Amino acid sequence: MFESAEIGHKIDKVTWKNTVPQLRTALLDAQYELKEQGRIPVIVLVSGQDGAGKGETINLLYEWMDPRYLSTLAFAEPTDEERERPVMWRYWRALPPKGRIGIFAGSWYSNPIHERIAGTMKQAALDARIDQINRFEQMLVNEGALVLKFWFHLTKAGQKRRLKALEKDPRTAWRVTQWNWDRLKTYDQLQEVAGHVLRMTNSPWAPWIIVEGEDDRYRGLTTGRIILDAIRKRLADADRQATPVAPPLQPNIDGRDVITELDLTKKLTKKQYETQLARWQGRLSELVRDPRFKQRSLICVFEGVDAAGKGGSIRRVATAMDARQYQIVPVAAPTEEERAQPYLWRFWRHVPRTGRVTIFDRSWYGRVLVERIEGYCSEADWLRAYAEINDFEHELAEAGAVIVKFWLQISKEEQLRRFKEREKIDFKRFKITDEDWRNREKWDDYHRAVCDMVDRTSTGTAPWTLVEAEDKAYARVKVLRTICERLAAALETTALPTAATGSKGRKARK
Amino acid sequence: MFESAEIGHKIDKVTWKNTVPQLRTALLDAQYELKEQGRIPVIVLVSGQDGAGKGETINLLYEWMDPRYLSTLAFAEPTDEERERPVMWRYWRALPPKGRIGIFAGSWYSNPIHERIAGTMKQAALDARIDQINRFEQMLVNEGALVLKFWFHLTKAGQKRRLKALEKDPRTAWRVTQWNWDRLKTYDQLQEVAGHVLRMTNSPWAPWIIVEGEDDRYRGLTTGRIILDAIRKRLADADRQATPVAPPLQPNIDGRDVITELDLTKKLTKKQYETQLARWQGRLSELVRDPRFKQRSLICVFEGVDAAGKGGSIRRVATAMDARQYQIVPVAAPTEEERAQPYLWRFWRHVPRTGRVTIFDRSWYGRVLVERIEGYCSEADWLRAYAEINDFEHELAEAGAVIVKFWLQISKEEQLRRFKEREKIDFKRFKITDEDWRNREKWDDYHRAVCDMVDRTSTGTAPWTLVEAEDKAYARVKVLRTICERLAAALETTALPTAATGSKGRKARK
Repeated sequence: MFESAEIGHKIDKVTWKNTVPQLRTALLDAQYELKEQGRIPVIVLVSGQDGAGKGETINLLYEWMDPRYLSTLAFAEPTDEERERPVMWRYWRALPPKGRIGIFAGSWYSNPIHERIAGTMKQAALDARIDQINRFEQMLVNEGALVLKFWFHLTKAGQKRRLKALEKDPRTAWRVTQWNWDRLKTYDQLQEVAGHVLRMTNSPWAPWIIVEGEDDRYRGLTTGRIILDAIRKRLADADRQATPVAPPLQPNIDGRDVITELDLTKKLTKKQYETQLARWQGRLSELVRDPRFKQRSLICVFEGVDAAGKGGSIRRVATAMDARQYQIVPVAAPTEEERAQPYLWRFWRHVPRTGRVTIFDRSWYGRVLVERIEGYCSEADWLRAYAEINDFEHELAEAGAVIVKFWLQISKEEQLRRFKEREKIDFKRFKITDEDWRNREKWDDYHRAVCDMVDRTSTGTAPWTLVEAEDKAYARVKVLRTICERLAAALETTALPTAATGSKGRKARK
Repeated sequence: MFESAEIGHKIDKVTWKNTVPQLRTALLDAQYELKEQGRIPVIVLVSGQDGAGKGETINLLYEWMDPRYLSTLAFAEPTDEERERPVMWRYWRALPPKGRIGIFAGSWYSNPIHERIAGTMKQAALDARIDQINRFEQMLVNEGALVLKFWFHLTKAGQKRRLKALEKDPRTAWRVTQWNWDRLKTYDQLQEVAGHVLRMTNSPWAPWIIVEGEDDRYRGLTTGRIILDAIRKRLADADRQATPVAPPLQPNIDGRDVITELDLTKKLTKKQYETQLARWQGRLSELVRDPRFKQRSLICVFEGVDAAGKGGSIRRVATAMDARQYQIVPVAAPTEEERAQPYLWRFWRHVPRTGRVTIFDRSWYGRVLVERIEGYCSEADWLRAYAEINDFEHELAEAGAVIVKFWLQISKEEQLRRFKEREKIDFKRFKITDEDWRNREKWDDYHRAVCDMVDRTSTGTAPWTLVEAEDKAYARVKVLRTICERLAAALETTALPTAATGSKGRKARK
């Protein structure tokens, strides 16, 4: 796949001089329209061989375009805040908002390629990562992003020539170190690994663009043209590019489903409640103080029918822990900065570090519940969300998170009773809004959506727990017990940390 | 100052039961109105002796209020991302937005108090920190925040009793460790240091509230009442509470000032420009690769008359560096999340880590330039901004940042020439907007504002460099040279890092 980039492309000075002014104007126009429209984030990956002109091209783009709407995202060694979260967290937090161009100098491809060359990543792990990357990029494109992946290529001889030329020029000599010369030695290895990775991630929605890197003018002009054409094309498309998704879900023909099967008569006596609540709260407080928990994290997701008692359950969970250890994230309408990002972005920002707990009061499942029912997103959007959510939770789990998801169910009659009761009691009054009454009218739609959600997102690593919440006492105890059991099971497979080998400990868990 | 909290306050069960429902309703109402109004962030500091009920009180507040608009901010050991930035950065990023209540479990007081007790912080350093904290809190209050600082107090005997009681109860026993018992031994020291700190930070805008911690009901009820009353009072005030600021700045009676003194005829020949540009770009590229720079950071601020050539200068600076090392932050209108915070918040989020460079294309000086001139903030706001900005830059410098600030000046005639020229050239067209023409009409206002800005914010650690920008070549070289000279001087006083003693190296610099 590198053949076309080994031809020895060159652009002469005159062509360059005649072409660049027009290109700049057009790029600026495109960039400006992009910003005005505020609909498309542009993600430009600048990668390739050492000395192939990555830095130069980025500087050129800065010269040609309006730097106010450009950002360069660079990734050195992960910080400890990054190491204690899923691998992709650092890239999520760097994503450009809609209307902006983010240039990734180094990207989600860099580590897997380098680790594979160094031999610290097995082929199977690399291929798993490739799958993950493909789905990640697909999600970006489906969310409206334009993803342009550049790979600047050099032949072995070309790389040698480039390094020598850089070394000769006093303005660039500093950039060439022993490290760069060492890269020549691993040229073949890089070609092999990168070739594999590029082939496997050459998706229709985000194909690789391989550009010969030796001639500055050729590389610069090609890159500029491609960026321009791609932005123009996307601006002209009224609709987002989107990969097709399968048609709606299977029908329920016998009236039975995971919700109808719930036994809502389950209850606890006051005495049972008090004993069991204390027991499981005590257990939870022990578990989160377990030294092994320093290598894990806990993510609790609370969804449920309105007035099913999410708040009460969350409080019972929270009280068992130290306020400094957990964060409750109430999910309301997204902010302006959140709306300018893929919909999962606002949840990624709350992903806890190891040793910490995040409780989501409503969550990313809004996409397949309220957004589906109210039509806040298209059918294709919520249909693909199931897979995107599974990916998200898989990444969390891979980084050591224990994910416990609850759906709290009450009967329609009980909901009415609680709504009325709450309206009477002053200090719960705020909990009943017009929206609650409107949601109630859509009871059956929610019922259906919840069943679909459970079918499609209850996975081995992140199963749903359906909670019979007609009796608050029963529900609270079930929630606490479930968290404790899941957490205890996870800690059993977690090695105790030793002073020196924090990360090894984490590996041992897998 | 602890006497009133050593009386042995107690609230009996009946009073508790009779009072709490009303208090809850009122707290919820207040919280709800706070949210609706979206004007006031509430910052609650929960501090005090070990075992004095900090955690219990936070849990109680969670029980009483709507957890959706509460967050608890906890601070463990600083992460490396935090260590590589000013001390206050972690608190800035945790500030609750307007309309929300942020409970700080541990705060900017914790470290200085603990370090003083441990003897790792000298009295003079503590007092400097106290000054800094006072100014920080004053800024918060001036920006509209309600700052409530609770200190839960116990007598020595009371602390012993509390620890024993906690240890006896199986639900709380886990919370009492040897660490807690050790605290008893340092009781007197804590009283002494905390007493000093509390006294010195007992400001009229954010006084300490000392609450006896031994009786749960007394502590809980008192805290709830105080929070309620304070929120209600602030909600009722149409205007923000604000500390008075000095009257306007001194007049210019002889027509001479730092701008009129600039010699705008300064220029370079093309040849001089090329030689000197290459020289200083080369020098800059060396400096940012100096191993000592890993302990410093570079912050460049570009302000200037419209069309004075900020963009061109920034590009010449950027080209000398690796795109992965710097970030250009173009300052435009604040986003929704930024508007919900004190005005400096949106700059704090871009503070670079050590070894990195941030270039601000316009900056926090907007407060005393465009915001002052257009009346986007009150006179009191921009008048106090000078001191707030000096504090901000001082904190940056203390953390190792080299701050280089440029004002680019051209003549009014030259501006007109450039505006017209730009309108003709296609790809620069975007740079001239109606706003630019409007700003031009306010030329004299800006002139005055710039002089005031330089007078009040050109400090030893962060001096302004006024750049004669009539000749672009001259301006660009002066900018590059200034950055190099400032950076070189800073690196000379920076010790080389050794593998083991990164932080010691940084201390040696001071």
